[in-house]
Amino acid sequence: MPGVVVTDPPRTPLDQVDALAAFGVATIHEAQGRTGLLGSSITPIQQNVRVAGNAVTVTVAPGDNTMIGVAVEQCQEGDILVVVPTSPCDMGYFGDLLATSLKARGVRGLVIEAGVRDVADLREMGFAVWSSHVSAEGTRKGALGDVNVPISVAGRIVEPGDVVVADDDGVVIVPRAQAPAVARASREREEKEERARARYLAGEIALDVNDMRPMIEKAGIRYVDYQAWKEEADK
Amino acid sequence: MPGVVVTDPPRTPLDQVDALAAFGVATIHEAQGRTGLLGSSITPIQQNVRVAGNAVTVTVAPGDNTMIGVAVEQCQEGDILVVVPTSPCDMGYFGDLLATSLKARGVRGLVIEAGVRDVADLREMGFAVWSSHVSAEGTRKGALGDVNVPISVAGRIVEPGDVVVADDDGVVIVPRAQAPAVARASREREEKEERARARYLAGEIALDVNDMRPMIEKAGIRYVDYQAWKEEADK
Amino acid sequence: MPGVVVTDPPRTPLDQVDALAAFGVATIHEAQGRTGLLGSSITPIQQNVRVAGNAVTVTVAPGDNTMIGVAVEQCQEGDILVVVPTSPCDMGYFGDLLATSLKARGVRGLVIEAGVRDVADLREMGFAVWSSHVSAEGTRKGALGDVNVPISVAGRIVEPGDVVVADDDGVVIVPRAQAPAVARASREREEKEERARARYLAGEIALDVNDMRPMIEKAGIRYVDYQAWKEEADK
Amino acid sequence: MPGVVVTDPPRTPLDQVDALAAFGVATIHEAQGRTGLLGSSITPIQQNVRVAGNAVTVTVAPGDNTMIGVAVEQCQEGDILVVVPTSPCDMGYFGDLLATSLKARGVRGLVIEAGVRDVADLREMGFAVWSSHVSAEGTRKGALGDVNVPISVAGRIVEPGDVVVADDDGVVIVPRAQAPAVARASREREEKEERARARYLAGEIALDVNDMRPMIEKAGIRYVDYQAWKEEADK
Amino acid sequence: MPGVVVTDPPRTPLDQVDALAAFGVATIHEAQGRTGLLGSSITPIQQNVRVAGNAVTVTVAPGDNTMIGVAVEQCQEGDILVVVPTSPCDMGYFGDLLATSLKARGVRGLVIEAGVRDVADLREMGFAVWSSHVSAEGTRKGALGDVNVPISVAGRIVEPGDVVVADDDGVVIVPRAQAPAVARASREREEKEERARARYLAGEIALDVNDMRPMIEKAGIRYVDYQAWKEEADK
Amino acid sequence: MPGVVVTDPPRTPLDQVDALAAFGVATIHEAQGRTGLLGSSITPIQQNVRVAGNAVTVTVAPGDNTMIGVAVEQCQEGDILVVVPTSPCDMGYFGDLLATSLKARGVRGLVIEAGVRDVADLREMGFAVWSSHVSAEGTRKGALGDVNVPISVAGRIVEPGDVVVADDDGVVIVPRAQAPAVARASREREEKEERARARYLAGEIALDVNDMRPMIEKAGIRYVDYQAWKEEADK
Repeated sequence: MPGVVVTDPPRTPLDQVDALAAFGVATIHEAQGRTGLLGSSITPIQQNVRVAGNAVTVTVAPGDNTMIGVAVEQCQEGDILVVVPTSPCDMGYFGDLLATSLKARGVRGLVIEAGVRDVADLREMGFAVWSSHVSAEGTRKGALGDVNVPISVAGRIVEPGDVVVADDDGVVIVPRAQAPAVARASREREEKEERARARYLAGEIALDVNDMRPMIEKAGIRYVDYQAWKEEADK
Repeated sequence: MPGVVVTDPPRTPLDQVDALAAFGVATIHEAQGRTGLLGSSITPIQQNVRVAGNAVTVTVAPGDNTMIGVAVEQCQEGDILVVVPTSPCDMGYFGDLLATSLKARGVRGLVIEAGVRDVADLREMGFAVWSSHVSAEGTRKGALGDVNVPISVAGRIVEPGDVVVADDDGVVIVPRAQAPAVARASREREEKEERARARYLAGEIALDVNDMRPMIEKAGIRYVDYQAWKEEADK
Repeated sequence: MPGVVVTDPPRTPLDQVDALAAFGVATIHEAQGRTGLLGSSITPIQQNVRVAGNAVTVTVAPGDNTMIGVAVEQCQEGDILVVVPTSPCDMGYFGDLLATSLKARGVRGLVIEAGVRDVADLREMGFAVWSSHVSAEGTRKGALGDVNVPISVAGRIVEPGDVVVADDDGVVIVPRAQAPAVARASREREEKEERARARYLAGEIALDVNDMRPMIEKAGIRYVDYQAWKEEADK
Repeated sequence: MPGVVVTDPPRTPLDQVDALAAFGVATIHEAQGRTGLLGSSITPIQQNVRVAGNAVTVTVAPGDNTMIGVAVEQCQEGDILVVVPTSPCDMGYFGDLLATSLKARGVRGLVIEAGVRDVADLREMGFAVWSSHVSAEGTRKGALGDVNVPISVAGRIVEPGDVVVADDDGVVIVPRAQAPAVARASREREEKEERARARYLAGEIALDVNDMRPMIEKAGIRYVDYQAWKEEADK
Repeated sequence: MPGVVVTDPPRTPLDQVDALAAFGVATIHEAQGRTGLLGSSITPIQQNVRVAGNAVTVTVAPGDNTMIGVAVEQCQEGDILVVVPTSPCDMGYFGDLLATSLKARGVRGLVIEAGVRDVADLREMGFAVWSSHVSAEGTRKGALGDVNVPISVAGRIVEPGDVVVADDDGVVIVPRAQAPAVARASREREEKEERARARYLAGEIALDVNDMRPMIEKAGIRYVDYQAWKEEADK
Repeated sequence: MPGVVVTDPPRTPLDQVDALAAFGVATIHEAQGRTGLLGSSITPIQQNVRVAGNAVTVTVAPGDNTMIGVAVEQCQEGDILVVVPTSPCDMGYFGDLLATSLKARGVRGLVIEAGVRDVADLREMGFAVWSSHVSAEGTRKGALGDVNVPISVAGRIVEPGDVVVADDDGVVIVPRAQAPAVARASREREEKEERARARYLAGEIALDVNDMRPMIEKAGIRYVDYQAWKEEADK
């Protein structure tokens, strides 16, 4: 039965959260073994913004945003609200008033597999949002969902207190216990990428930088000139 | 049989239209009882633009924009063209030349459940467009549709002379006879939201601002601490 | 069997390529008889950018970007990489490192019917991309595809050495042999449009500018006033 | 404000409705000038069934089927329920109990731009359904919509009392006042098709049966043999 | 890091599983508080089949079915395989050979948010499948995923050992600990529906059977005759 | 410029075509190195039918089926018509009259990335169709396309005279020159699968039949019991 609000879920310490904010979503996704990325239907309403925060998870009924109101009370400094309806719904669950309220509590953003509205205002006030739709269609009140239980959003399981990192590329979830390790791995990956970038700038290519030639040869790659290929294809 | 052009449909007086332009699409949608919003597939090609105007309605054949040309002649100062193909089509029915022509007649924008092209030019010349697609694919000429009859666009019925209001959140239709009442209700709603915003800024939350606690209690909400929830879930 | 890399396909001379860069995608599409346009699912990650270049074609396995690495070696000044997975895949095949490498070789952009990542970086470094998705989801290495063979992308056949032109409206392919003729036809079309634009600015409308009145009359258009229409509809 | 139930809309006489049931949806669509067809997202849950009836129109809130219950009371012998949510929703608004109730009243089927459930039972009991989704997800009760007002369904306007005809090809709407004329035109079309079918069976082809050769010649068709085409394409 | 295979997850006793097989997916979904239903994109490849079994959960890489092979070894009598790729993929992960192998072990079916192939054979051999796609496109081998860890499928979290029930309406997941309670509640619901069905057959309608009249009156329903409505709408 | 009809493209000898009809689409796709499969949006309108034939390729304008009429004249015994609109279109391009005409000429089926109608009739008369949509929406006449030139359909290039094989799993294209080799490889594959099937029936599993254990071990698979996994996950 829906209607459960878990009041004090464990959270990732904010210094660990903030350490992850130094890295892009793509880097973090790689650093944790290519896991945890939300599906590509979740896109930012703004450009050039990156945030990291503790997930406060929320399920809502289709067309009813009651539980977002309930969830606000469970939010604190450094949180990011993660919302999913129990059935697909593109309505506008969230607008500038809720954003004002969340911002006043130090919440850093919203991730929602549904619609948001007042997007011009949200961009102007600097409240970061990743959503699957934009819609002015208002929702009703009265139906329960859950707050701070594990949820399924855009193909991934999100637990309350997991770290949410979001930027122009999308949204990635870092499990709470792994935040420090993932930050370290991200740092290492970024340093490695920096070295690779220098080589690319100098004109080297991925086949050599990543030592891919033996692999593709073993896989059976065949280099043919155009004339030979053309004759073969015309046969 | 298609091919009907209604030449002098009633229009909403422009002072009433302009009064509605003061409000966002989300506000108007709320103010008129959450009706009239086009589906979320219709999105703006530009940011931070809001327009309001009288609907000139147009149906076109798939891949044929003849009737847009016909409709231009029926347009006047303060109109907004609303176009839908009789079958889904993502082709580019509309570009900078038609926009030049419409702008010269005082038309304020285009809403189309199909594709548009020359979008960089349209943005630069400041002609506002909401569409379901962007496509350079040109259309043919020769097939008839209708102008200024009721049409079905993105899930809503639009009548000629209804007020179209569009912004970053989408497009809402206000029935002609209701324009003054909806403007008043929008004003009231905005004032109410302003008062709410002040309370949110002061740290109050929606559960209290909207007096939602009795409702969620009656619905059976249960607040549990994490430890209790965990034990229950692991059973 | 995949794994073929054609090493020296014919290319369109760069002066012919650059001549096409003077025209918008919509103009070129019209000028070559409304052919060659990729489907509207391929959209730019940036605004107000137009590029033209020689197609280097690449097929990749779902979730594996090995062949992009292989294709880099086949790229030269003035090329545009055109990539399609052999099955639909929204993963992030391409990011800022590959862009750095391509840019160092004079490659002008990427067209991909799949996802890209690091889009904020790509925009900042000025590497132009048209893609069907944005996703941070990294790909594996090890599976072969082909380079510089004809491919099917977003509903069109692209041959290596065809000219790719891309802007805010989408992507159009000009067959290699037709580049000079299409450039001429584009020029003529643009001049004709310029003349039409002047007439539209002066208040003329498409029905007259395009001499459409005989056509719509023959097709059976009927102009009726609102009162007459209303009585007919209420019957 | 939603909540309006029109209690006694005009209906098409049942003998006129039944006359239309003799024709396929494609034939009727042609016979009335290629208008009135619902979009292809509405598909039957059964095969080889055709029904015709008077439209009883219903709007429902997303995830709430209250108004279907209200609409049942407005239904009578020979009706077909036509239902659309005010925002897209794939939930299962309708199942075998409502079908039992409708069948007991002589209702002939359901057309819904949303989900239905108990489809195995519905097929077994012979209650015909055309829907956009199948889903077991139940809906709530408590939100109002309208009954027997004009609605927008799958891209078309449906008025109460219009004739709904549905078969394996989809759903077509015949305006009430035009039912007899459309039945006549359908009969004529069918007879014409019968004559054409005989010619096709005898080996004639559409170019001759429909006298299309002058048209395609005028349009500029070019017949070339393979060798000539190949040489041209290889240039 | 993917690659974890949990070898002995708890399962729901088969007598509890079989008790649930007596009820339709819609009934079970209702009986457990409208939770646990997979999204409507997962559809059966056959008609009139219902199965219930213990979930063996599997994640696979896009285009690689290695882990289905690994999962077979973890399957036993009464299981249902539940498979999801880590990124959306419509390829054919599963065909008649794997079905032969699973059937030989007493596995009762497959639920997969991806493609399957050999569907004519699967139907003929009576191996039940619910999938999001049908595709002959074969997958590679070599990439790891996980077996018997919690997964996110079609919008829901599925744990190994949960009961999967699937029929023509879709797929519902019953948490292991709740199987007996849900079976009881399903029985009660079915009995209640049987009583309601008798009343519907006798001509009563939902407004009375469900005592909905006070609710809709309070919500503000307005019954108007057609003439009154028409006058109001024409104003 | 469209309007080209190639009158005498090379065809695959019918004995080679018929040899391929002995194998399923999945088998042929595998046998030719996992190439040539049309996308999963192309589905059969009937069950348990497999056909093979020579491709006659057709491009049509959106909403205009003129070129199908033109193509009929180019068809002969053993052909399969393959049709694609130049822009996406779900309209009903093809119905029972054209099927009657094609059947009279010995054509074996239709593959179309668009809509078809009269599907109940088509099933009854045994004319096999694979399409992306079903729609009664009729098309116009008058716009040219091409016949028997290479086309891009559902993600693949199809050349006239290629072999089309289609069954319940979808549609695969075999290049003309490779038909005999692919038939041989299909036969070998089927024999190999038969041997594997016997082992699966005897209780062996894919890990052993395909000798996959070394591969997954090398990739780093980890088998853990539930208790160990639970402790790790709860950390």
